[in-house]
Amino acid sequence: MSVPENLNHFNAQGEAHMVDVGAKAVSTRIAIAEGEINMAESTFDHITEGQIHKGDVLGIARIAAIQATKRTWELIPLAHPLFLTAVQVELIPEADPARIVCRAEVHCAGQTGVEMEALTAVSIALLTIYDMCKAIDRGMVISDIRLLKKEGGKTGLWTRETRS
Amino acid sequence: MSVPENLNHFNAQGEAHMVDVGAKAVSTRIAIAEGEINMAESTFDHITEGQIHKGDVLGIARIAAIQATKRTWELIPLAHPLFLTAVQVELIPEADPARIVCRAEVHCAGQTGVEMEALTAVSIALLTIYDMCKAIDRGMVISDIRLLKKEGGKTGLWTRETRS
Amino acid sequence: MSVPENLNHFNAQGEAHMVDVGAKAVSTRIAIAEGEINMAESTFDHITEGQIHKGDVLGIARIAAIQATKRTWELIPLAHPLFLTAVQVELIPEADPARIVCRAEVHCAGQTGVEMEALTAVSIALLTIYDMCKAIDRGMVISDIRLLKKEGGKTGLWTRETRS
Amino acid sequence: MSVPENLNHFNAQGEAHMVDVGAKAVSTRIAIAEGEINMAESTFDHITEGQIHKGDVLGIARIAAIQATKRTWELIPLAHPLFLTAVQVELIPEADPARIVCRAEVHCAGQTGVEMEALTAVSIALLTIYDMCKAIDRGMVISDIRLLKKEGGKTGLWTRETRS
Amino acid sequence: MSVPENLNHFNAQGEAHMVDVGAKAVSTRIAIAEGEINMAESTFDHITEGQIHKGDVLGIARIAAIQATKRTWELIPLAHPLFLTAVQVELIPEADPARIVCRAEVHCAGQTGVEMEALTAVSIALLTIYDMCKAIDRGMVISDIRLLKKEGGKTGLWTRETRS
Amino acid sequence: MSVPENLNHFNAQGEAHMVDVGAKAVSTRIAIAEGEINMAESTFDHITEGQIHKGDVLGIARIAAIQATKRTWELIPLAHPLFLTAVQVELIPEADPARIVCRAEVHCAGQTGVEMEALTAVSIALLTIYDMCKAIDRGMVISDIRLLKKEGGKTGLWTRETRS
Repeated sequence: MSVPENLNHFNAQGEAHMVDVGAKAVSTRIAIAEGEINMAESTFDHITEGQIHKGDVLGIARIAAIQATKRTWELIPLAHPLFLTAVQVELIPEADPARIVCRAEVHCAGQTGVEMEALTAVSIALLTIYDMCKAIDRGMVISDIRLLKKEGGKTGLWTRETRS
Repeated sequence: MSVPENLNHFNAQGEAHMVDVGAKAVSTRIAIAEGEINMAESTFDHITEGQIHKGDVLGIARIAAIQATKRTWELIPLAHPLFLTAVQVELIPEADPARIVCRAEVHCAGQTGVEMEALTAVSIALLTIYDMCKAIDRGMVISDIRLLKKEGGKTGLWTRETRS
Repeated sequence: MSVPENLNHFNAQGEAHMVDVGAKAVSTRIAIAEGEINMAESTFDHITEGQIHKGDVLGIARIAAIQATKRTWELIPLAHPLFLTAVQVELIPEADPARIVCRAEVHCAGQTGVEMEALTAVSIALLTIYDMCKAIDRGMVISDIRLLKKEGGKTGLWTRETRS
Repeated sequence: MSVPENLNHFNAQGEAHMVDVGAKAVSTRIAIAEGEINMAESTFDHITEGQIHKGDVLGIARIAAIQATKRTWELIPLAHPLFLTAVQVELIPEADPARIVCRAEVHCAGQTGVEMEALTAVSIALLTIYDMCKAIDRGMVISDIRLLKKEGGKTGLWTRETRS
Repeated sequence: MSVPENLNHFNAQGEAHMVDVGAKAVSTRIAIAEGEINMAESTFDHITEGQIHKGDVLGIARIAAIQATKRTWELIPLAHPLFLTAVQVELIPEADPARIVCRAEVHCAGQTGVEMEALTAVSIALLTIYDMCKAIDRGMVISDIRLLKKEGGKTGLWTRETRS
Repeated sequence: MSVPENLNHFNAQGEAHMVDVGAKAVSTRIAIAEGEINMAESTFDHITEGQIHKGDVLGIARIAAIQATKRTWELIPLAHPLFLTAVQVELIPEADPARIVCRAEVHCAGQTGVEMEALTAVSIALLTIYDMCKAIDRGMVISDIRLLKKEGGKTGLWTRETRS
């Protein structure tokens, strides 16, 4: 069996490498990803009340996400180092069922996309929420981490049609 | 509103801090977490065939996960630095629907638990799979990242009763 | 000239090394450091109003400080890796003249002190405040970063007598 | 109260983000920062004699500063990753009162300034001097960390008029 | 004695700095480095059989090398941060005497070369092989780490004429 | 073929993991490693004269080595995080043929050895020398990186009998 041509992290011998993007044009890259963490009603109440008062779980999760985004290439073995030009992380409390939805948007002017950066931002934001609330709710579940949209590069625009 | 007593990452003024664990006993800490990435059948086939041949997506995801586990305290703002004594990451292909399940087990002899380490291992393993297959399947979804079990410390054993 | 005996980061030949602390007893180490950033009145007003509203400069500075504290041994060449057990960072707005005072307290059970960790926490908190306000006030000045107190280890308690 | 327009690390809701610099022109950015560490006469003598002999405190502080400068974006939460093109760190012993003055100059061709890089260089150089001399002088004080000059970008040249 | 002009990491006073590359043209930079690890026959057999079966020492060494390459500028004090565009690491078992040869090729579009990145890739790959086999063979020796070729920049092409 | 019992980074299925050291006794671990970089006579002269004057190549290499040693577990995928208690790096100029020999000694009180830390120290010291002299001598070769001795742990003392 040969390696499929577009599984491009492997060469013909199936050995991993960091893909050569040197010949690609520099273009503006955008990626938007989303995910959520489901929790008990009481946990949800503590977090959302914290937004008004001071124990700011979501503010800390947002900062953790932005910082991790910049280090995506250290975490994902074959990812390229990138100069991110913008990172935006929204954390939206949604009831019924109780959950926090995280949406991250990442921009870069480069030769490769920022999908992994957006997905990493979402993952770390949700893990940070877990960390800060685990003493009161170990049963929280992180789900539906997925790409919503990406723009730029040779393959151009991609959007998720329906919510998975 | 007062901060709930066990939301212990915040002081009485709602300010975040790294919780003082200096008075806690050192005990063996174990945590097991699980999660999965759902994908197209064709993506699943490429990955699982790669296990037999050489383009070893799962082997690389396993290494990425182990490395990230050791750096959990850099990623999660209020997590403590820890001496991990063991990290084990399983990646299990499961059909119907096509997905890779990741299960991570982390051990430590310390004053605080390793739940975040196990959840981070799972998250990074699944993100790495996404990275290596995104050229053929951008629609993959990471789900059900959750703690299955934790042992040790003052609160002792906790197990998830039913699959969320 | 010989190297003074207690300039212990150097050997007899004047070559730097990471001091051998293997024979030292493990004891509880505590260090408290302080520093401040001076600013224009208008900058001060924006920051302190932000505490009530949402643009939370001080909350972000606190998180940055806690994270940097854990990485002190990466930043300071001859510092030892340490298991911190507690990190607490206070940011206190003080008028006349307008400034934010940062006080950090770090705990550890180890063979070497945590003075550098407390001083690094203060430095990074103040630098983060500078970063977030520099667009409105480039003239801010960071000053008086100093150790207030340290406990534990062979040399025991040390306290700064008068404010320098 | 609305967020002041140029406190641009926050959006209209007061939520932090990494500012979008994608539309900014790439220009040569330069920043120069300065700071000092005050110390006992005897400490000063050990350091300055070390320059002639071998226990090279200032040489090590310089290296620590250069290395930390490259990691500024890991330390300061909302700082952008940057390709630095030059880093220069001077450490100047000055008597009456006894102190070491640190001056750092950082260059970059990018879409955002390098003020934070220069200020971080100074901070880490001075912290490293503290670390290496703390066994003989715990009372040292780090002061007057401030920007002297910055060039490039939309806001152009800025210079500090008088010593604060 | 004056500092030789092209020992350019030092200024006229002999003080280290990160060389100013701001005026250099951006060009495609390529470097190829090689090295090897010598081992007992039985160790060699375990590694090479592992390639066919599953205990994939070389696959893990390759990933470790790629990841370390991206962090070369954190490890080598005066190295510049760089956007690598391609990293390729080959690990070639060679008998008589039993050894694994590592060859790494690194590409970048930048103002400074990638020799250090290629040499770091080789070093970390060989160290990782040592780590994974040390339980059965502590006597392994890493040798002949050297640059084979570099292209790009002001000095242009350089190739090693004969094997050292 | 089964995985040899003491190739303990792999489980029975040949999958990599971070070995469980939780049941091992804490003991003092020591490792000493050595290696060298060979160079042109003229390069050697510049480096050794720099020791007397100010362009201190060896001093910088020593600091780089100490810092990298502390991060060995980030570089070597299956290495355990460790609390190093001492790191010492010697750089010895030796003529005929012209070379710098690096010897590193690392101590730790832990459940696993520090061989990789000592070998990493040597590797990074030699790479840093290469970096600082490459402008005048691209042909330098790093060789003979090997363990000289290790103490502590279940397997106890090991010494290299003859120079490989």
